[in-house]
Amino acid sequence: MRVRVTVMLKDGVLDPQGEAVRRALGTMGFDGVQGVRQGKLLELDLADGTSRDEVRAMCDRLLANTVIESYAIEMPAG
Amino acid sequence: MRVRVTVMLKDGVLDPQGEAVRRALGTMGFDGVQGVRQGKLLELDLADGTSRDEVRAMCDRLLANTVIESYAIEMPAG
Repeated sequence: MRVRVTVMLKDGVLDPQGEAVRRALGTMGFDGVQGVRQGKLLELDLADGTSRDEVRAMCDRLLANTVIESYAIEMPAG
Repeated sequence: MRVRVTVMLKDGVLDPQGEAVRRALGTMGFDGVQGVRQGKLLELDLADGTSRDEVRAMCDRLLANTVIESYAIEMPAG
């Protein structure tokens, strides 16, 4: 079972990596780039039947730092 | 206009970061984690009317290393 977890810095948390990308794009001549936020994307191959609660536990304990990051879980229904 | 770009290592390219996450999850007692791939997620705030071709150019020139990475663009239709 393929599960996707996206982890982003929360709004209000400074994102120097995204800011560096924004500036670089401007320098390269791409106009109109107003903001960039960079996060992580994790694709997990899990045993069938793994529950959303278990994936949430993985996020809370390892994949995200919930003080400064929020996460979203996309998994097959059922 | 909010555009999402996901960048993942291509299949067959070694992903030590993902592998480290897989092992860590196993060590923490999460069974059934068969594989983990880690990628980047970029959320771009772009001027309305920016074309998909322009976003593709940003990916090809800066956001992804297309030798080893593939990318996907999600943007509002139109």
